[in-house]
Amino acid sequence: MAKTTGLNAIEMQYLRLSLGLTTEQVATITTTSNEDVLAWEAGEKDAPVPVQKKLLDIDDIIEMQVLNTTDGIEDLFKKEPKRRLAFVVYPTQALYTQYNPEFLSSLPLTELYNTSAWRIKKECKLVLEVDVTLVALDAEAYKAYRAENGLSENRESRAKWAATQL
Amino acid sequence: MAKTTGLNAIEMQYLRLSLGLTTEQVATITTTSNEDVLAWEAGEKDAPVPVQKKLLDIDDIIEMQVLNTTDGIEDLFKKEPKRRLAFVVYPTQALYTQYNPEFLSSLPLTELYNTSAWRIKKECKLVLEVDVTLVALDAEAYKAYRAENGLSENRESRAKWAATQL
Repeated sequence: MAKTTGLNAIEMQYLRLSLGLTTEQVATITTTSNEDVLAWEAGEKDAPVPVQKKLLDIDDIIEMQVLNTTDGIEDLFKKEPKRRLAFVVYPTQALYTQYNPEFLSSLPLTELYNTSAWRIKKECKLVLEVDVTLVALDAEAYKAYRAENGLSENRESRAKWAATQL
Repeated sequence: MAKTTGLNAIEMQYLRLSLGLTTEQVATITTTSNEDVLAWEAGEKDAPVPVQKKLLDIDDIIEMQVLNTTDGIEDLFKKEPKRRLAFVVYPTQALYTQYNPEFLSSLPLTELYNTSAWRIKKECKLVLEVDVTLVALDAEAYKAYRAENGLSENRESRAKWAATQL
């Protein structure tokens, strides 16, 4: 890695923090060790280029999701103007894996999805003046809601349940 | 706090993470305790409105600094086009307090300044296609550089030293 093009120690650290990840989580998604991550951030060794690329790609994926979702919300609200919206997030990796598997390949950890959700909330406030509330999925309450209303499990049902939590 | 307007547990957590702070650091800048911060993020109690406001204000200050600095860099590069730039950051609170005290009132922790610097790096890459490198101040190396070149201590000298680190 040329010293002048890659990310240095402090940049690796703040890239990680901006993604909302611990050093252990970075080790998991880059198939390295926590000791490696700590060494990169201490400037004891350079992070391998593929690791840097992986993390920067994830940040790009999140930024893209923020733009796309914000655009989608803008379109939605042209038809049905309102200033508040619930956005479902997943408080554990198990719930994320069970309920939101379509994101696992691009954003493998629920923390990455939550980071994206937080940036969506900020962006919607800034550009649309829409208040987005992040609603952590409560699996039991959601199941009871579906049973009461005869709803099958899908993204739309989750969104409907989340709206009841505002 | 009305449940519908303030930040909930997961939002408090991701606001903190997006600022690059630990729970202890949030406790410090909001003059609360680490136990309080953990309780807010666990949903055991609501974060007080002034605490929420303080953290959201800091995020706004950072966003403003990102915009202003990116604009400043754009203006600078109209006169002197280049595609690379060094930006000094401070690896410890002691160095931040000593060398960059003008930011202490708005961004009291060096981690907040670093978070801002990371966002500036991202923004400059995205909108200006300028590669910004965050250069952690090495106080000894910087002092030696000043002695060699007969420079007094100021922001410009720090920037000159940082440029030698690219």
